[in-house]
Amino acid sequence: MRVLVIGAKGSVGQTAVHALQDRNEIIAVGRSHGDIRVDVEDVESIRAMYEQAGKVDAVVIAIGHGHFGNVADMTGELWMKGILHKVLPQVNVVLEGIQHVNDNGSFTMTTGVLNRDPIAGGASAAAANGAIDSFVFGASVDMPRGIRINSVSPGVLQNSMDRYEGLFPGHEPVSSERVGLAYVKCVEGVITGQTVIVD
Amino acid sequence: MRVLVIGAKGSVGQTAVHALQDRNEIIAVGRSHGDIRVDVEDVESIRAMYEQAGKVDAVVIAIGHGHFGNVADMTGELWMKGILHKVLPQVNVVLEGIQHVNDNGSFTMTTGVLNRDPIAGGASAAAANGAIDSFVFGASVDMPRGIRINSVSPGVLQNSMDRYEGLFPGHEPVSSERVGLAYVKCVEGVITGQTVIVD
Repeated sequence: MRVLVIGAKGSVGQTAVHALQDRNEIIAVGRSHGDIRVDVEDVESIRAMYEQAGKVDAVVIAIGHGHFGNVADMTGELWMKGILHKVLPQVNVVLEGIQHVNDNGSFTMTTGVLNRDPIAGGASAAAANGAIDSFVFGASVDMPRGIRINSVSPGVLQNSMDRYEGLFPGHEPVSSERVGLAYVKCVEGVITGQTVIVD
Repeated sequence: MRVLVIGAKGSVGQTAVHALQDRNEIIAVGRSHGDIRVDVEDVESIRAMYEQAGKVDAVVIAIGHGHFGNVADMTGELWMKGILHKVLPQVNVVLEGIQHVNDNGSFTMTTGVLNRDPIAGGASAAAANGAIDSFVFGASVDMPRGIRINSVSPGVLQNSMDRYEGLFPGHEPVSSERVGLAYVKCVEGVITGQTVIVD
């Protein structure tokens, strides 16, 4: 299959690339690396990416960031960062991509642990994850031509644990290999409308 | 308790008012009706509402609308309607309200059935519900002074079924009384971080 991986050099995107590359043609996409460059916050850039890629069988979207901070100090503007920098870009990659995905292809979005296992300061990120996990469930019944849509929701990756020092007390890190398997399940399997949890 | 009900004249808000009014002082808030008027899409208007209300023990938020339509015809702009007209206003009512809620008080947000029981054209609404349900779970661990936060997620109300003619095939409508009980559980009970489902 031809698999477009957006965020291919990120810590999560790399797990998908490594797990998928032996059996599939990977088109690596990133902001500053990859076969194709994209600014996922710009719909025109997303359209140009699809034009450049041509038809694909699967789209893996492993991008996004948001705001961490206590709700008592949060503003609506800070809260919206998760929507504007993670949710909407991932949703736009789906909405703009439907016509570029072959029959029975798939979209795989990426969320995370915070809407099932909360941490201090994680309310905005939890909401962003919930929006995406619920979007794939809601969108799965609308998808044309047998196209599937799922999300992968990993716990904190072992290779990112240093970056989040102290923020995730007691969270058991997950291996890149296990996260990669979740993307394989979504891309090469048959499920739709699901959130594949890796804990 | 002093309970601020935002959207008190709406089909959902009314269920909360009826169920709570015998044992509590209700301050009814609406865009065009009620003891206090508010434009929930304007943060300044939300602040003015809280100044007018004074300290309260509970805030019930039963407002919002979004976009219905197939994902194949959806744009990012249409998708964002649920965020801008339902999620962000409800979140802003919480963020702006924390300092106006008494110790051990509560916020109760409102979502709906579509992120557990999808319908055609409901992907954007599902995402909006998921964002709020996940926000209350994530925010519950951050709330100061024993303040609780939950959401009520009703199925289609019996008294709204006509309005949604044909959109919810096979959905079993829920009574206003049962929806009202969910608000009572959130306001007068002790739970936090939960979504109270009424199906």
